[in-house]
Amino acid sequence: MNHSFHPGLWTDLYQLTMAQGYFLSGRHQERATFDYFFRKNPFKGGYVVFSGLEEALSLLLHPKPFDRESCDYLLEQGFDNGFINYLSTFRFRGDLISAKEGEVIFPNEPVLSVEGSLLECQWAETLLLNRLNFNSLIATKASRIRSVAGDKTLMEFGLRRSQGWAGLDASRSAYIGGFDSTSNVHAGKTYDIPISGTQAHSWIQSFSSEKDAFQSFIDQFPDRSILLVDTYDTLRSGVPHAIEMADILKQRGQRLQGIRLDSGDLAYLSRKARKMLDEAGHPKVKIYASNQLSEYLIRSLNQQGAKIDGYGVGTQLATGQADAALDGVYKLASVDGRPSLKISENIEKVTLPGRKEVHRFYHPNGDFRMDGVVLHNENEVSTLYHPIHPSMSTSVKDCTQKPLRHFQIKAGKRVSTVQTLRDIKAYAAQQLQHLPIEYQRFENPHIYKVGISDQLFTLKQELLDQNKL
Amino acid sequence: MNHSFHPGLWTDLYQLTMAQGYFLSGRHQERATFDYFFRKNPFKGGYVVFSGLEEALSLLLHPKPFDRESCDYLLEQGFDNGFINYLSTFRFRGDLISAKEGEVIFPNEPVLSVEGSLLECQWAETLLLNRLNFNSLIATKASRIRSVAGDKTLMEFGLRRSQGWAGLDASRSAYIGGFDSTSNVHAGKTYDIPISGTQAHSWIQSFSSEKDAFQSFIDQFPDRSILLVDTYDTLRSGVPHAIEMADILKQRGQRLQGIRLDSGDLAYLSRKARKMLDEAGHPKVKIYASNQLSEYLIRSLNQQGAKIDGYGVGTQLATGQADAALDGVYKLASVDGRPSLKISENIEKVTLPGRKEVHRFYHPNGDFRMDGVVLHNENEVSTLYHPIHPSMSTSVKDCTQKPLRHFQIKAGKRVSTVQTLRDIKAYAAQQLQHLPIEYQRFENPHIYKVGISDQLFTLKQELLDQNKL
Repeated sequence: MNHSFHPGLWTDLYQLTMAQGYFLSGRHQERATFDYFFRKNPFKGGYVVFSGLEEALSLLLHPKPFDRESCDYLLEQGFDNGFINYLSTFRFRGDLISAKEGEVIFPNEPVLSVEGSLLECQWAETLLLNRLNFNSLIATKASRIRSVAGDKTLMEFGLRRSQGWAGLDASRSAYIGGFDSTSNVHAGKTYDIPISGTQAHSWIQSFSSEKDAFQSFIDQFPDRSILLVDTYDTLRSGVPHAIEMADILKQRGQRLQGIRLDSGDLAYLSRKARKMLDEAGHPKVKIYASNQLSEYLIRSLNQQGAKIDGYGVGTQLATGQADAALDGVYKLASVDGRPSLKISENIEKVTLPGRKEVHRFYHPNGDFRMDGVVLHNENEVSTLYHPIHPSMSTSVKDCTQKPLRHFQIKAGKRVSTVQTLRDIKAYAAQQLQHLPIEYQRFENPHIYKVGISDQLFTLKQELLDQNKL
Repeated sequence: MNHSFHPGLWTDLYQLTMAQGYFLSGRHQERATFDYFFRKNPFKGGYVVFSGLEEALSLLLHPKPFDRESCDYLLEQGFDNGFINYLSTFRFRGDLISAKEGEVIFPNEPVLSVEGSLLECQWAETLLLNRLNFNSLIATKASRIRSVAGDKTLMEFGLRRSQGWAGLDASRSAYIGGFDSTSNVHAGKTYDIPISGTQAHSWIQSFSSEKDAFQSFIDQFPDRSILLVDTYDTLRSGVPHAIEMADILKQRGQRLQGIRLDSGDLAYLSRKARKMLDEAGHPKVKIYASNQLSEYLIRSLNQQGAKIDGYGVGTQLATGQADAALDGVYKLASVDGRPSLKISENIEKVTLPGRKEVHRFYHPNGDFRMDGVVLHNENEVSTLYHPIHPSMSTSVKDCTQKPLRHFQIKAGKRVSTVQTLRDIKAYAAQQLQHLPIEYQRFENPHIYKVGISDQLFTLKQELLDQNKL
């Protein structure tokens, strides 16, 4: 979406219905706190890389979320004139406290809270969920792929299979999560992400022979040719022709950059191709691979001793398979000074009431130990309790601790530094280094502890008791 | 994306790299044909509802795909000056032949073909794949949900969990596939889709009691109140309070529109709530349900005798779970008058060469019987062959037949009528009625036959033989 996008209507109808309800009953300025959190790590993993914040902030602070056209539309839909008049000059003037984009986060902690008028908090809900859920899903997926790819090149190739316009977000969040580049030129331009690509089968097919196709390509792109070798027969035609090109470029004092395998047994073909290239005197010609790759397939290729220098990953990454969605929610925690919770028949789904803060506790070596959710303005806590089973507790009194969240917006003004994409990417990589590997493994990862203070536990229990029928 | 969006860069880098390669070697005007098709029905289903075409056409025909900014960016990326100069006035001037949007389509048939210069066809690839794959996935998912929902109300609620900006496409394609409305206000405005919604838990929590919350809501929205009844206790608090509101509205000569269940055992709760409402004299107050619904859960609710009048469906629909992507591809079929195919070690992945046409054959009652892919300008065919096993054939000589595809664009001009969203939705519903139910069932659906002519089979075999190494 570009700058002329007015985000006012990028929301669910009921947010505006409720906003009108608050407005017409004179309650719209009541102060409220809403928390954003998710309940389950995606991909059966042990963490999430938080992404999408910068764009969420910039959309939230749009100077005119509801332009004339939006207001006219809402009037046609039967909204109240006075309310629409209010919306026509509305902008977000609340506070937003959040973890940094790129932070490593965990289930059931309020990673982000919005404080402001009931009306503006309600409006912000869908916008924030839409920005944060998907982007965090993709940054997390990308980080998993990076974790098995080591320092190999990772190229995001997802645009053709991405969920339509989601291809733009996907490229940005894949980069944050650890990818080196994207094939999506629009994303490259929009977010200053390095762009990369090779050639398609159609290029090869458009010539009367594979050799002519390769020759024409290296003549025109001598410094950046990656030849796709599987159009006819990888080992009997593609690789031998690529070696001929590597010879030609070598004679010219240049170098073939690489070949790309896009079908067949990548482990076997890459080992064979590596051997053929090496024996022909081209040990520096790289081998890239693509074709429905995932973190699992890349790990398997590693285990098989595949000789692959870089991966192009598309569908699985750009659509966040196998999950396709992060289950983030945005729940009312306090209104008009009164803490509030959402009761559920499922005890794990009862929300944490009140205005809260989140602290991260560290091991002496700087690794994350656990997170703690406490009430706002609580004195320092020394013990954290399991949010449901208070008999389980952990002492944190000797741990270094830092607040997980910071003010991003105060009274409608951005107060934190705008993070560049490169900052965010670097921060994510750095934070992941402090997440012990047992939380990062794919199978049955260790469950990171998020405890709550006794005061928060007590408040929750009191509110539950009040609501017993 | 809005009208100021220039789609030139909404593509993979390699398309532009290859385009420059064609341009600089003077081959960019060679005439080419590319086919769009997919290989596998999503959701283990038996068909796909084709969606995304209208927007694809309008983006493809953008009068200036590459604006000044795009060109500058490409120059910075090292593209050739002469080529960028060409792009700066480039627009699509080829032909596009396609099935109608809303058509019911099947694997391995060229649903859409692009004919034009090699350069413009190559550029169009990613744009088309990005538009058609996701939208067709969602329209198909929606049609499956409609198939089990009968004439109940279906509301799309996916924006908060959709893949970012994909929420816009998702709302449109869900409508095409059979949904009645969306909660996404921006989509409602953009595509003239009816918008709908109820109220959130936060509305209820923002009042000191559920009853006050309901009362305030019905006072302000007497003609469109759907009360969310699960904030505290559905049967002991929510439904009884809703009945009080229904009584009040009745006394005022108005009617409570409905209640919404969003957690717990929807089958049980809906039956109980229906009974309570009926016994209180409110048989016309409807019961809506939401909470991670899918076609499978709705079918199960039906089987359990749930008393639900309408469903709100979010994540599963808007992200096309469990698949999240349609595997559509775009393959070169002919270049410079020469038919071409992509060879693969997997025989099923060998593409169909040459310029082709697609016919649909009908049973006497108007139901679809099978589709046939034939060479362009072939005489009428009477027998169709299995594309891989020619010993399997079907006579179609007594069948009515119609071309599946029509010219949409000729020489860069739209020649087909622009379809409204309502036309497309109606067309999809009508076509699905002609797809026998054995192809529509969820478990092991019958495989719809797509045959090829003997001439096409022979051409494919000849080309395969020529490429034997």
